[in-house]
Amino acid sequence: MSDPNCLFCKIVRGEIPAKKVYEDDEVLAFHDIRPVAPVHFLIIPKAHVATLYETGEAHRPALGKMLALAGELARQQGAADGFRSIINTGRVGLQEVYHVHMHVVGGPDPLGPMILRRK
Amino acid sequence: MSDPNCLFCKIVRGEIPAKKVYEDDEVLAFHDIRPVAPVHFLIIPKAHVATLYETGEAHRPALGKMLALAGELARQQGAADGFRSIINTGRVGLQEVYHVHMHVVGGPDPLGPMILRRK
Repeated sequence: MSDPNCLFCKIVRGEIPAKKVYEDDEVLAFHDIRPVAPVHFLIIPKAHVATLYETGEAHRPALGKMLALAGELARQQGAADGFRSIINTGRVGLQEVYHVHMHVVGGPDPLGPMILRRK
Repeated sequence: MSDPNCLFCKIVRGEIPAKKVYEDDEVLAFHDIRPVAPVHFLIIPKAHVATLYETGEAHRPALGKMLALAGELARQQGAADGFRSIINTGRVGLQEVYHVHMHVVGGPDPLGPMILRRK
């Protein structure tokens, strides 16, 4: 459920600080440390799962909550007129951290293309 | 639950054809008519909901299934090495059809920026 070496599991366990947006037993939302837009936070399941290829029936409740919460949290953070929610998976999807995470990206102006990899 | 004038509700009701990828009682997946990558399909909840701003607890099961299925369906469609799953919401997010839909976009090569609005 928790991976000792995973960056996001360390944030869940409180070993690495994060600017939290929302937290409950199943999910955690926190600001991206390198935002690409005025509103940019991540929502993750607390239980470790590396990619969307590994998710199944057991992960549905947390994943459903992540999507169902995205709009409310985006509005609270100042993105009341639209946003994008993006999960990058695997090599082709340019996934950076191998713990499933959804980017929520918004702002006052229409969003152009975004790659969400900053290496 | 179904909007008589919604394009995606018409696809759910079979009034407009679509190349289906997956279907059950809650969700439907079908190929995007204007693909931006070798693999590009949409996953939608069958019940009409305009945007992620309108989703709540009742929508979680279908939304969770959409995300938990994305990897398996992407692999079946030929995107076994990565993909992106993107939901565009509202004006700023450049949403085109006002029925929640998740783009699943993948292919053999790493994905660059993509705007997913083709007007």
